[in-house]
Amino acid sequence: MTKAIQIGLIGAGRIGRVHTETVANCIPDANILAVADVLEKAAKKCAADFRIPSFYKDHRQILENSEIEAVLICSSTDTHAQFIEEAAEAGKHIFCEKPIDHDLQKIDHALEAVEKAGVKLQIGFNRRFDPSFKRVRDAVSAGEIGTPHLVRITSRDPEPPPLDYIKISGGIFLDMTIHDFDMARYLIGSEVDEVYATGGVMVDPAIGEAGDIDTAVIVLRYANGAIGVIDNSRKAIYGYDQRVEVFGSGGGIVVSNQTPDLAVLSDADGVHASKPLHFFIERYTESYVAELQEFIDSVREDKTPSVTGLDGRIPVVMGLAAWKSYRENRPVKLNEITSN
Amino acid sequence: MTKAIQIGLIGAGRIGRVHTETVANCIPDANILAVADVLEKAAKKCAADFRIPSFYKDHRQILENSEIEAVLICSSTDTHAQFIEEAAEAGKHIFCEKPIDHDLQKIDHALEAVEKAGVKLQIGFNRRFDPSFKRVRDAVSAGEIGTPHLVRITSRDPEPPPLDYIKISGGIFLDMTIHDFDMARYLIGSEVDEVYATGGVMVDPAIGEAGDIDTAVIVLRYANGAIGVIDNSRKAIYGYDQRVEVFGSGGGIVVSNQTPDLAVLSDADGVHASKPLHFFIERYTESYVAELQEFIDSVREDKTPSVTGLDGRIPVVMGLAAWKSYRENRPVKLNEITSN
Amino acid sequence: MTKAIQIGLIGAGRIGRVHTETVANCIPDANILAVADVLEKAAKKCAADFRIPSFYKDHRQILENSEIEAVLICSSTDTHAQFIEEAAEAGKHIFCEKPIDHDLQKIDHALEAVEKAGVKLQIGFNRRFDPSFKRVRDAVSAGEIGTPHLVRITSRDPEPPPLDYIKISGGIFLDMTIHDFDMARYLIGSEVDEVYATGGVMVDPAIGEAGDIDTAVIVLRYANGAIGVIDNSRKAIYGYDQRVEVFGSGGGIVVSNQTPDLAVLSDADGVHASKPLHFFIERYTESYVAELQEFIDSVREDKTPSVTGLDGRIPVVMGLAAWKSYRENRPVKLNEITSN
Amino acid sequence: MTKAIQIGLIGAGRIGRVHTETVANCIPDANILAVADVLEKAAKKCAADFRIPSFYKDHRQILENSEIEAVLICSSTDTHAQFIEEAAEAGKHIFCEKPIDHDLQKIDHALEAVEKAGVKLQIGFNRRFDPSFKRVRDAVSAGEIGTPHLVRITSRDPEPPPLDYIKISGGIFLDMTIHDFDMARYLIGSEVDEVYATGGVMVDPAIGEAGDIDTAVIVLRYANGAIGVIDNSRKAIYGYDQRVEVFGSGGGIVVSNQTPDLAVLSDADGVHASKPLHFFIERYTESYVAELQEFIDSVREDKTPSVTGLDGRIPVVMGLAAWKSYRENRPVKLNEITSN
Repeated sequence: MTKAIQIGLIGAGRIGRVHTETVANCIPDANILAVADVLEKAAKKCAADFRIPSFYKDHRQILENSEIEAVLICSSTDTHAQFIEEAAEAGKHIFCEKPIDHDLQKIDHALEAVEKAGVKLQIGFNRRFDPSFKRVRDAVSAGEIGTPHLVRITSRDPEPPPLDYIKISGGIFLDMTIHDFDMARYLIGSEVDEVYATGGVMVDPAIGEAGDIDTAVIVLRYANGAIGVIDNSRKAIYGYDQRVEVFGSGGGIVVSNQTPDLAVLSDADGVHASKPLHFFIERYTESYVAELQEFIDSVREDKTPSVTGLDGRIPVVMGLAAWKSYRENRPVKLNEITSN
Repeated sequence: MTKAIQIGLIGAGRIGRVHTETVANCIPDANILAVADVLEKAAKKCAADFRIPSFYKDHRQILENSEIEAVLICSSTDTHAQFIEEAAEAGKHIFCEKPIDHDLQKIDHALEAVEKAGVKLQIGFNRRFDPSFKRVRDAVSAGEIGTPHLVRITSRDPEPPPLDYIKISGGIFLDMTIHDFDMARYLIGSEVDEVYATGGVMVDPAIGEAGDIDTAVIVLRYANGAIGVIDNSRKAIYGYDQRVEVFGSGGGIVVSNQTPDLAVLSDADGVHASKPLHFFIERYTESYVAELQEFIDSVREDKTPSVTGLDGRIPVVMGLAAWKSYRENRPVKLNEITSN
Repeated sequence: MTKAIQIGLIGAGRIGRVHTETVANCIPDANILAVADVLEKAAKKCAADFRIPSFYKDHRQILENSEIEAVLICSSTDTHAQFIEEAAEAGKHIFCEKPIDHDLQKIDHALEAVEKAGVKLQIGFNRRFDPSFKRVRDAVSAGEIGTPHLVRITSRDPEPPPLDYIKISGGIFLDMTIHDFDMARYLIGSEVDEVYATGGVMVDPAIGEAGDIDTAVIVLRYANGAIGVIDNSRKAIYGYDQRVEVFGSGGGIVVSNQTPDLAVLSDADGVHASKPLHFFIERYTESYVAELQEFIDSVREDKTPSVTGLDGRIPVVMGLAAWKSYRENRPVKLNEITSN
Repeated sequence: MTKAIQIGLIGAGRIGRVHTETVANCIPDANILAVADVLEKAAKKCAADFRIPSFYKDHRQILENSEIEAVLICSSTDTHAQFIEEAAEAGKHIFCEKPIDHDLQKIDHALEAVEKAGVKLQIGFNRRFDPSFKRVRDAVSAGEIGTPHLVRITSRDPEPPPLDYIKISGGIFLDMTIHDFDMARYLIGSEVDEVYATGGVMVDPAIGEAGDIDTAVIVLRYANGAIGVIDNSRKAIYGYDQRVEVFGSGGGIVVSNQTPDLAVLSDADGVHASKPLHFFIERYTESYVAELQEFIDSVREDKTPSVTGLDGRIPVVMGLAAWKSYRENRPVKLNEITSN
C-alpha cells in the first residue's frame, strides 16, 4: 500500500463532514490528520466522530503543520478566497468548495496566489463525477450525438435552504444555478457568451423578501452557437430533480432521476414508482468519492485536476450575468461582467 | 343512426386527405359530399380514392351547395382568411387548418365575418386532442400538480420541410412553434404576455439562406407569473420528438414519446428500444379523429368548439412576437404586436 | 381501386361486430355483403349499424350466395367445425375464430374438408399481428437474441368472463391459455412436445364450482430444448396484462404493457402512470385490422394465410394436454393426446 | 461511540474480502481483529490489505481468542457445518455464508450445536437486504397487492462459474437457485410444499459433462395455494438479470434491473440504455452492508437475526427436491426430502 496523503480539513459543517466520511471510508490512500473550525465544538465533534488526531479553532494551525500536504476548504463562502491564498502560500494543495467567492477580484487574487505557489487547486463541482452525467459528457465528446445543438438542465431542490443562508448566499444564481452553469460548460466542452435569465417568487414570499427568487429559467448562448436552457426551483415536492439532456445533429441523450428502489406497483389506481432520491447527499454519493479520489490522485501523481480554478471562476461570472439579466430583463454578454 | 352532417372539403393536399380518410373511417355521423382544389387533378384523385360524389376546381361550388353544412379548409395558408370569410357568408360551419393567416388584420376580418354569420369556427390545433396532452391538461385543471410554475415543451421534427414551403410559411415560429404556442396556452389555461426567442441555423445552411432558422428556444412569461420554455428543431435524427412537462407547487407531470412497439432488446451492447413514431401522421392519428368528432358534435349540437377563432389568432401574435424578439434579441411583450 | 372481396359474416356477437367494424373502416378492399345469426335480431341490428345489405337467421343463405367469396365465422365455438365444413363445401374461403373446437376429431374433419375444397382457412389468433409481438418474433427469427432458451408469457385478464361462458368454454386452458399456446409457438417457431400445468382457484370460488380454475402456470418443453413458461390469471385488478419475453444465447427481448397515455405524474406520494389498456378490444385494435387484411390479401393473391388450420389445431392439443397435466399433476407429452 | 464488536474472519476468499471491506468502511461499530484461511498466504494478504492485526492458517486460533465475539464463516461450503459447530461450542456468534451444507444431517447437527450454545446464527442471504426486494416484501406484507397469487423470480448470471466450482457446488439448484428459493420464501412469507423443476444444458456442453445443467425453470406450490416460478440461466450476455414480481388480488409489484447510469441515448438506430450492473458485487453492494449491520446489531442488542439457521436449511431442502424433480421429471413434495 502506498503512503497515505495527509489532509487538513478546514470547516467541519455539513459538507466538511460528508468529505471526511468519504475520505475515511472510500479513499484508502488519504487520511485526515487535523480539522479546524471557527466553532471549536464542531471541530472537536468531527475529530471524535471520525477519529481525527487533532482539532483546532484556527485553520492556521493546519497550514503550519508540515505533515499536511493538502487541505479541504469547506468553510463558509466568504472565507474561501482568503483561505485559498493562505493555503497556497503555505504550499498546501487545495480542494475548495464552490463558489470560490462572489467577488471576481477576490477570486482573481486567490487564483494568482495558487498559480504563484504552483499548488494544485480543485473546485468542488462534484456533479461532473456522477456516472450518468459523465456518460453524457463522454457520449458528446465521442460524437455519439453529433454536433450539440441544445442543452437542457433541470435542477430542482426538494426544499429551500434556510432564509439565513439565502440572505448571504448570493441568491439562486450563485448558490444553486452555479452547479448548472458548471454542468452546462462541462457537458459540451464549450463556453457560454450570453445569458438571459427570468424568474420569480413562486415557492415562498419570504424568499422574495430576503431579496432572492425561487424559480428561474436561464437561456445560454454558447460561443459555438449551441443553446442551453436551465430551469430551477427551490422546491420540488417529489424530491431532488436532476436531469440533463443534450441534443445534437446525430441524436440526443437524456439523464433521468435516480430512485431509492426499482420496484413498480400496479394497482386499481394506476402504476406507481418511488420518488427520486431525496437530496444531494443521497443522489451524489458516488460523485463525492470520485471527486476526492481525483484530487488525491492529482496530488500524488502531480497532475492538474480536471476542475480548475478557472472552472470555479467562470460560473460565478455566469451567475453575476444572470442576476444582471434578470434585473434588466435583457440578454447579457458575459464580457459585460468584469472584475472591477 | 342520426343523419350524417354533409361536409365540403376545400384543399385536397396532404392534410386534406388525412381529414378525408378520418371522416370516412372514423366519423360515422359525417360525410364528405364534395371536394375542391385549385389543382383539379388533386380534387379528382381525392374524390376517386375516397368515393366522394363531386369534385371541383372552384371552392365556390362547394359554398353554393345547400346540402353542405360545413367545410374543412385545408388549402394553402394564404387563402384561409378569405375562405373563412366566404364560407361564413355562405352560412357554412368552418373547420380551418392553422394558422388562419400571418396578417392580424386579415385574421380579424375573418373572425368578424364568422361572428357576424353566427357559424361555428374550429381551428385545427389537433394536439390538444392527444390523449397524453389532454391528460396533462386535465391533471393541471384538477390541481393534481398544484399551482403551475414551469411549462416545458419539446417539439422537434424528424426532418425539415421543403425549402419552397419554408419560404412562404412565415418561418419556424409561425409554421412550427405555432403548435407549441397553442399547447403552452392549452396546458395551463393562462395567457402569455411576454416572449423571448433565440435560435440559429444549425441543421441546414439553406434554411438560413431562405430567411429562416432551424433551431430555437423560446421563453414565455405567463400573465399569472408562470414561465414556459419551448425548444424546437427542424431535425431530430431519431424521429418526431414531442414531449411536454408542467411543474407546479404540488408536483410535476411529464409526457414522453410514443413508439411503434413496446419491445426492448438487451444484448451485449446494451438495452435497445424503438425510436419514436416517425412524424405527425403516425403520432397524432387519434387526435385527428377526436378534433373532427368535436367539430361535428359542435355543429350537430350547436355548441362552441373548444378551439376558437381567438385560439387561432393568439398563437400568431406569439409567433410574430417571437420573430421580433429573435431579431431584436430582447424580450417582447405581446401587446407590442398590433394588427396595424 | 381494386374490386372489393365480398364477405359473409356468420355470428353477429361481440367479436363478429369487432370484425365488421374493422372491415368497414380499415379494409378498403373488402365489403360485408350479408350477416347471419341464429338470433335474427342480432343479425338485423348488425346489418343496420354497419349498413350491411342483407341479414339472415340461417347461415346457409350466406353460403348459397354466389357473390360471397369468403366468410368470417364468429359464431359460438361448438358450431365452428360444422360451419367450416359447410363453408368449405360451398367453396368459400374461411376466417374462423379460435378455437376451432375442443374435439380433435371434429377439428380433423373440418380441416380435411378445407383441404379437399382447396379453400383458404385462417384462424383468428390475432395477437400474432400485434406490432410488439411481431417485433419479438422478427428479432428471434433474425437471430438478434441468438438461440432461444426461455420464453415467458404473462396473460392476465382484467376480469373473469361470465360463469355461463366458463361452463361451456372448455376452461382456462382452452379459452384463455390457447392464445398463449399459439404465442409460444409463434414467437420462436418451434413445436412444444411436453406441458406441465398447475393452478388453482384464487379469484372467485364460483369459477371452481363451475369446474374451472382461474390462476395457472404452464411450463412448456419445446422439441428444440427451449423452455416456456406461461402464467395466467382471470383477474388483474390493474387491467389487461399482456407481456412476453424471449431470452437466448445472444440476448433477451421483452414486451411491456401498452397504456392509454404516456403521462407520468410525480407528487409527494411517488411517481404515477396510467394502468394498461383495459382489455383486448383496446389493446389489440391494430392486430384485428392486420389479421383481416392478411386474410383478404390471401384470398385476393391466392396465397396461404400465415395462421393455418394446423395452427388452430395444435393449441387445442396443448390445452387438452394442460388439463390432463393439471388433473394428474405430472408433465404430459403432447403425443399422449390423440383424436380418438 | 459504542465499543466495536470484535470479529474473526474465517476464509479470506472473494466473499470474505467483500465482507471485510464492508466492515472496514461501512460498519463503524464492528472491527475485524483476525483472519484465518487454510491458504495462509490469502490470510496474510487480507490482513495486510485491510490492516487486520492478526492472521492465521488455522481457524481455531480465532475461536480461542477471547476478545473475539463473533465470526464470519466465508470458507468453502464443505467446511461450513463443522465451523458452525466449533464456533458455537466456542461461544462465538456466527454469520455464515450460504449454503450451510448440502447434507441435511450435517445441517441439523450444526443447528443443534447453535441452539445448545445459545449463540446467534445468521445465514448470508444478502438479497433480502436489497432495497428493491425489501420494498416488494414490505408491499406484500402491508397488503398493497392483496393476497399473493403468483411470484416470479428471474435470476440469470452474466457468466458461468469455473467448471471446478460447478463440480463441487451441488449444481445449479444448490449454488444458484438457492438464493431464489430463499427469495421465494422471503417475498411472501409463506412456505413451499412442492417443486417441479425442468431444465437443460444450453449455455455450455462442458457444464453438462460436469454433471450440471445451466438453464432451469422451477415451479413452486406454496402451502397457502400461491404459485411461484423461478427461471435461471448461467449466462445472460447482457449482464446480471435479477428481477422479481409478485402478483395478487389487489395488484402486482415488479422489480427491474439496476444500471450503472441513467443515461438514454436516441440516435438514428433507436433508443439505447446501459446494460444492468455486471454481477453480484456491483448489484448487491448495499445489501452486503445491510446484512452485516443487522448481524452486528443482533449481537449487540441480543436479538435473533431475521435470517435464521432454519432459513438456511429450507432452501437446501428445496434444492434437493428440485434435483429429484428434475431427474424424475415429476413434481416433488418437500416432505419427500428427509435428512436420513
